[in-house]
Amino acid sequence: MKTYHLFQFGKGNIGGALIKQVVHRVDAMQTQYGFHFEYVGVCGQSQAVYDQAGLNEALEKQTDINRMLTNYPGYIAYPGPMAMLDIVLRNNPPNLFVIDTTGAEMTDVHLSCLRQGIPVITANKKPIADDYSAYDEIQRLGRGSTFRYWYETTAGAGLPVISSIKELVDTGDTVLEIAGCLSGTLGYICSQLDTGCAFSDIVVEAQALGFTEPDPREDLNGMDVARKALILAREIGYILNMSDLHVDGMVSDTLLEAPSVDAFMALLSQEDEVYARRMAAAREQGQVLRYMATVKNGACQVGLQSVPLDSPTGSLTGPDNIVVCTTARYKDNPLVIRGPGAGPEVTAGGLFGDLIKAVRVID
Amino acid sequence: MKTYHLFQFGKGNIGGALIKQVVHRVDAMQTQYGFHFEYVGVCGQSQAVYDQAGLNEALEKQTDINRMLTNYPGYIAYPGPMAMLDIVLRNNPPNLFVIDTTGAEMTDVHLSCLRQGIPVITANKKPIADDYSAYDEIQRLGRGSTFRYWYETTAGAGLPVISSIKELVDTGDTVLEIAGCLSGTLGYICSQLDTGCAFSDIVVEAQALGFTEPDPREDLNGMDVARKALILAREIGYILNMSDLHVDGMVSDTLLEAPSVDAFMALLSQEDEVYARRMAAAREQGQVLRYMATVKNGACQVGLQSVPLDSPTGSLTGPDNIVVCTTARYKDNPLVIRGPGAGPEVTAGGLFGDLIKAVRVID
Repeated sequence: MKTYHLFQFGKGNIGGALIKQVVHRVDAMQTQYGFHFEYVGVCGQSQAVYDQAGLNEALEKQTDINRMLTNYPGYIAYPGPMAMLDIVLRNNPPNLFVIDTTGAEMTDVHLSCLRQGIPVITANKKPIADDYSAYDEIQRLGRGSTFRYWYETTAGAGLPVISSIKELVDTGDTVLEIAGCLSGTLGYICSQLDTGCAFSDIVVEAQALGFTEPDPREDLNGMDVARKALILAREIGYILNMSDLHVDGMVSDTLLEAPSVDAFMALLSQEDEVYARRMAAAREQGQVLRYMATVKNGACQVGLQSVPLDSPTGSLTGPDNIVVCTTARYKDNPLVIRGPGAGPEVTAGGLFGDLIKAVRVID
Repeated sequence: MKTYHLFQFGKGNIGGALIKQVVHRVDAMQTQYGFHFEYVGVCGQSQAVYDQAGLNEALEKQTDINRMLTNYPGYIAYPGPMAMLDIVLRNNPPNLFVIDTTGAEMTDVHLSCLRQGIPVITANKKPIADDYSAYDEIQRLGRGSTFRYWYETTAGAGLPVISSIKELVDTGDTVLEIAGCLSGTLGYICSQLDTGCAFSDIVVEAQALGFTEPDPREDLNGMDVARKALILAREIGYILNMSDLHVDGMVSDTLLEAPSVDAFMALLSQEDEVYARRMAAAREQGQVLRYMATVKNGACQVGLQSVPLDSPTGSLTGPDNIVVCTTARYKDNPLVIRGPGAGPEVTAGGLFGDLIKAVRVID
């Protein structure tokens, strides 16, 4: 039986969920597909463990991964991504797969793996949304005759968005437009606006409920959606950098530049009147506001739009994502994929799916 | 450069569209992925061509495939599926892939290919909806350590339905329910019912427009939807045969047993009053009628249901398909896939996508 060795950057919500899912399915994979997954290393932002003998047993026993790491004999202080990768490569584990569940700057690590033929499975958007030259090298190394780069979860989490678009392009379809709502957080805020609540109240509540990042500006500036939109645009062949995108955040630049989170939150109610006016104008036309990404005619736009209530995007509620793909083949009736586009379990499931596919093409 | 040889059963709407798509993309596949597709044979219900030297050039030149076949030197009368397969195998083309775009009884052919390690790409539902023992052998041979059986298009055509469900199961998710509308034809009829038209008028018009089979009973008996539902149910591990399904057609058995199509069409208006009553009852509750497949609790039901107008299935219009998948991970917000679930171009695109994936895991 062939053993595939896994090294994983990140052990937070998504990373932790993935470890649990994989370790739980090791026996089933052996029985059904005849291969074995074995974790040889995991690292967080402060600690790391590498053990060529395998970590599955320890990971299965100790479900608190932080405690498992600090209790593991020979754990080390995390030396940073490239130094960590060097340690892994010096041990030269056969059939290595590197998994990235961080949100860190990891372009160098991904490229370094690919240059050595090591497959990378990533939920981290940053490398694939990095400068086009890096993207281009990733694609050439990771998406040539053998697929070694898997990033389904970088847009829409576990939803089959990127693979579906990839397949349309591969089979010669022409993608005319990709439009969608790609942020659960901003989707929730837009849904609450539908009910007539004040914008500032909604954001305060969303922050309190943990629906936003600790600094809600990281959601409201639109950059997370912009990265996903850029990834989808590049998937259909647009040669774009982030600076080419037209990104309108959900709050004014003045607010985004507030000196602290508290200062920002205190200024939020300044936006209430603008939103009340926009909502009233939309409602008058039977429309609602949605934070949309639109990829079309070689360009990519991200921002708030007024859309018909009974359209696929307008009927979206709560934190769901939606992607509406109009192509030469799917012209009158687009291909629509909808569901939660964030969350540890669904994102980990998407990563695990990528891992299984990655193994299947290497085997 | 590695050449993959293709033999295709079926050259109708779907088969013809697939040939065009593949032949058109041969150069792109070479450049991008470093492999070459070459048709070595195609057969219809009366003629067949096999030429180990390759047919791409002839297929590209003569877009009318029927004419191409009859003009091709050495074409033969189609000897039936197993005899045809024997001819192909006697020639022993290396790296052979068999494609099935027919609606014929082909279980023996598929099994024969798989037993010899030949990958099969199929839009033909019948083998995979055949008796469970055949299904089980197909899965054991075609979905073990190497995937050699590809059937994404047997439910939802080009929509990523089966692959998404497969991935959820593979990664350890528990599928609680699959509910959906899996027939474009019956979806169109239900949509027209929403507008208040009489049932018999709708069917007569749908037949005239070519939206139904020449004998509309082949749609209205629900068996096509039942086959798709059975395929999805088996995908999540239900051990079921067609006889275990509860299938309610859209017309009474008396009508289905009419001696001819004309006799059937003449009797159709008998159903108008029943439909008018059901529609009125549904409308009173803010609901509409949809022809649903429901896979749940180990069982599988197919029939007309009254659903809320603002539900994902209720808001469906025209010939779109929809699949709503509720799982342990996708519980509060299900995974929803929507779009045209029939049509030559999208079905051929799905087959082509399967073909590329099939090559990638074999290579």
